[in-house]
Amino acid sequence: MPQRLDMRSPDFGTAFAALLASKREAAADVDEAVQKIIADVVAEGDAALVAYSQKFDRVDLGALGLAVSAQEIAAAERAAAPEALAALRFAHERITAFHERQRPQDLIFTDALGVELGWRWSAVDAAGLYVPGGTASYPSSVLMNAIPAKVAGVPRLVMVVPAPDGLIAPLVLAAAKLAGIDEIYRVGGAQAIAALAYGTETIAPVAKIVGPGNAYVAAAKRRVFGTVGIDMIAGPSEVLIIADDSGNPDWIAADLLAQAEHDTAAQSILITDSATLAAAVEAAVERQLASLSRVAIAGPSWRDHGAIIEVADITAALPLAERIAPEHLEIITRDADALAARVRNAGAIFIGAHTPEAIGDYVGGSNHVLPTARSARFSSGLNVLDFMKRTSILKCSAESLKALGPAAVTLGNAEGLDAHARSVAFRLGLTNS
Amino acid sequence: MPQRLDMRSPDFGTAFAALLASKREAAADVDEAVQKIIADVVAEGDAALVAYSQKFDRVDLGALGLAVSAQEIAAAERAAAPEALAALRFAHERITAFHERQRPQDLIFTDALGVELGWRWSAVDAAGLYVPGGTASYPSSVLMNAIPAKVAGVPRLVMVVPAPDGLIAPLVLAAAKLAGIDEIYRVGGAQAIAALAYGTETIAPVAKIVGPGNAYVAAAKRRVFGTVGIDMIAGPSEVLIIADDSGNPDWIAADLLAQAEHDTAAQSILITDSATLAAAVEAAVERQLASLSRVAIAGPSWRDHGAIIEVADITAALPLAERIAPEHLEIITRDADALAARVRNAGAIFIGAHTPEAIGDYVGGSNHVLPTARSARFSSGLNVLDFMKRTSILKCSAESLKALGPAAVTLGNAEGLDAHARSVAFRLGLTNS
Repeated sequence: MPQRLDMRSPDFGTAFAALLASKREAAADVDEAVQKIIADVVAEGDAALVAYSQKFDRVDLGALGLAVSAQEIAAAERAAAPEALAALRFAHERITAFHERQRPQDLIFTDALGVELGWRWSAVDAAGLYVPGGTASYPSSVLMNAIPAKVAGVPRLVMVVPAPDGLIAPLVLAAAKLAGIDEIYRVGGAQAIAALAYGTETIAPVAKIVGPGNAYVAAAKRRVFGTVGIDMIAGPSEVLIIADDSGNPDWIAADLLAQAEHDTAAQSILITDSATLAAAVEAAVERQLASLSRVAIAGPSWRDHGAIIEVADITAALPLAERIAPEHLEIITRDADALAARVRNAGAIFIGAHTPEAIGDYVGGSNHVLPTARSARFSSGLNVLDFMKRTSILKCSAESLKALGPAAVTLGNAEGLDAHARSVAFRLGLTNS
Repeated sequence: MPQRLDMRSPDFGTAFAALLASKREAAADVDEAVQKIIADVVAEGDAALVAYSQKFDRVDLGALGLAVSAQEIAAAERAAAPEALAALRFAHERITAFHERQRPQDLIFTDALGVELGWRWSAVDAAGLYVPGGTASYPSSVLMNAIPAKVAGVPRLVMVVPAPDGLIAPLVLAAAKLAGIDEIYRVGGAQAIAALAYGTETIAPVAKIVGPGNAYVAAAKRRVFGTVGIDMIAGPSEVLIIADDSGNPDWIAADLLAQAEHDTAAQSILITDSATLAAAVEAAVERQLASLSRVAIAGPSWRDHGAIIEVADITAALPLAERIAPEHLEIITRDADALAARVRNAGAIFIGAHTPEAIGDYVGGSNHVLPTARSARFSSGLNVLDFMKRTSILKCSAESLKALGPAAVTLGNAEGLDAHARSVAFRLGLTNS
């Protein structure tokens, strides 16, 4: 049974706070192991990648080679179902079109004092994309991580993906080819992150690393942050659905389960002002679970982390949603647009009955890499700016420096930074060297 | 003596790589201590802040109170030199005008298939600004950290600043008032970061923490990253000056020292194609050092980390600059604009002889919080977007879902995610629940 909360009950505040604070992941303490893996890759390069891949993935990269060859990629493409390839191409086109609208503008202007200033955006020199192996290996995620980098203009895009027992999902390689990834290496885990950050004989280092991974990957990303840029530390997926009695219980149940099937630690929450809908959705979830291939994942997720919250009035859902700050927010109400306009803390909003979250996962066009674990309070989904950086530009003439300089001299002196003050004063002829 | 490198010498590649790899800071291993401090603040709240402030800052916050009062701020303002206040107001106006140009645009559009999509930007609910105490306590940094948050529209802006022996620099409080900071607490170190991230009885938690600090502050920021957003892990400051023989050696020497006076770990590098200029700058630095109040800081910085690199041709400086990816890049050459246009990896570029970096520190208008330690390869200076997040919006009609849905069903099935496929298929009438 999912948790049932009622905003009208006296203990609601406590119960809701507990729901917010609940940890859904066992924080595996892998940091020490990860520290050693990184040090080994730094010290031994490719040899460490070969050794760890043998140990963790049961694959002999010494024999197979680190790089996935063009022939292997072509073979994977041939092995993929044509219908799936066509759907990937459709997704690629839509995701590209959406992200092209995110390209930032440079700006250089001359202000009233004659100072030229502004900024210029540029792409990072190289980006690394981590793709998980095995059952969490999704071609759609390859597109979602790679396309913003391509749109940003990143000249070198590297993918790393573990090959447990030598295997990589063909559709993942096909997606990588479609997305224009330049290099693919069959290595995963903390060792892959270390290779991307520090480089080895075979893998040149990158400036930015993105993509989801397990606890080892997350710990490694946290450790290399600063040496390279990282996107975010992703947690288990989550959806919040706000629905009134106009909602179709079967559709809502399917959406709750679409989140729950990702991970036993995923979380699906429904907030509604209709007791009838709440009951109908709960029944529909049980009914649909029975025929779901991933029932062993979706079932525990829904039972252990799922929640149905009843509110007296649908607008009361909003402050709760702001505190939850969900990765995905579906609004299935009569006034969905008006409610959506008032939300500040959400990774993505799916408006109306005909916008299941799964559309955003694949073909909507917006990015499906979104902030989890309440981090939508302060961060955004993956986007083109994640692969760019902004350089400030400042240019004074002798004349405009006369207008600006005296205040800088005053502040330099006030902060006890003589050389700062002097560097300006020399140019103004106020001091001799 | 600073290091002298010559690009024409056979061992240049090795020497330059060593310069890039040199660690300027002893990596104090404070992580364990920081972990305990954070746990104590989480468990004991204000009491832990009082205890740690007594221990580290020799101040009794139980008696003095955690919050700095309006009366104290007003008294600080009266104590500040009018000329310094006027210069701060001038800086405030220019920094605000610059950052107002960084406000992002929302975008909602309807595509050819009738799908409504786009994004909406919103400010974080609350931001915390860490201000170091003692000699590294700079009013200009208060403005640089606070103004982008105000321009972003952050409704609650909190400042924490340690008060060693009870003291806070008056001009720092005056700058906080000028910048419109809402709450000021006299607490510093890892305990202040923990309070901002997790909250105490007195200090409500924030969503984003910015501002520089010592090794404890940096370690604490790294640890709370994920619970809240952070800006960056700042390292010691650095400048790279590219100059040809048109450069004034005294001005260049002053600029190198303006960086060196920040910290013994700061780094100042000159790249020039003129042996004459190189020699003249080196002599000028020695001459100017003698009369500098912070000679004990600037001297070791220049001797231990400073470098002069000679190149055969000034354009050969560019690839070196790209690898250094300096926080500050001054270009003092005849063709400064053309050279500047080709730089990708730099926090900020200061173009021409009349743009000393110190102008950017105070009154240029652009932000002086910039990426250090080669992180300009992947990150940007502090800006308005650091205090905002972008929420994606997606809305399908029954009609547009018909156009998008089949590809989503195909991809959901291809990824083995039945419930994803089903959530779309239900709506298309392809499957019964």
